Amino acid sequence: MNTNDGFRELGREECLRLLEGAPIGRVVHTRHALPAVLPVNFCLDVDSAVLMRTSADSELAAAVDGVVIAFEADEVDATAHSGWSVVVTGRATVVTDPAEHGRLARTGPRSWVASPGEVFIRIEPELVTGRQLVAGLAAY
Amino acid sequence: MNTNDGFRELGREECLRLLEGAPIGRVVHTRHALPAVLPVNFCLDVDSAVLMRTSADSELAAAVDGVVIAFEADEVDATAHSGWSVVVTGRATVVTDPAEHGRLARTGPRSWVASPGEVFIRIEPELVTGRQLVAGLAAY
Repeated sequence: MNTNDGFRELGREECLRLLEGAPIGRVVHTRHALPAVLPVNFCLDVDSAVLMRTSADSELAAAVDGVVIAFEADEVDATAHSGWSVVVTGRATVVTDPAEHGRLARTGPRSWVASPGEVFIRIEPELVTGRQLVAGLAAY
Repeated sequence: MNTNDGFRELGREECLRLLEGAPIGRVVHTRHALPAVLPVNFCLDVDSAVLMRTSADSELAAAVDGVVIAFEADEVDATAHSGWSVVVTGRATVVTDPAEHGRLARTGPRSWVASPGEVFIRIEPELVTGRQLVAGLAAY
């Protein structure tokens, strides 16, 4: 830990526990050769993969299928100058197996907007890192 | 607008107005060849550049100086299924001009944690895009 950085590294289990309680995260990927960031609701699968639900013809599904992307969630209290941030990095895939789709339709994230032909996207939890903001953010 | 995407594109002025009211944003850059996301406090300069303050020897300052990066802020109400997300994409630079540093020390963002040798990072607002979540997120 860099003593000027003002944060504490979190372990994988601690990161996953924090993610379990977060309603919203952000998909970070590349769009037209530029970084793109999209807030989404999500949940974790039994193997800790990040699960999202989207329409089959969405830009997101086309952009991330088969690509290593990052998924970030955080909770920051701007008044108390404290909080945490977790990033999951791994390959995203659109779930195509019918049985797996059926399982996720029962147990996976709910759509905020129902649309026809929805699919699930999984992000493998290959790398799970996190930081607790010990005494603020600005010294990152 | 893709009718399956459930959002409305926001204009540049609307995006900047939303950023003005956001206490926290996220720097998105590349770290060890992987996407990295860091929450930071920030403010906008008079020319709408994003301003952050960090220690001169921070990992962030070294990682983003001279690099095109993205900066994202959002406000999402997970209960109401509504909100917005804005992304500023542009070149980041560590401010080295003493006069400019002095101006930003008076008018720029405050550190949550004071550390010696602080610097300001500017992100040029070359591309400012945003989305209002019209009826939810999951159909992105």
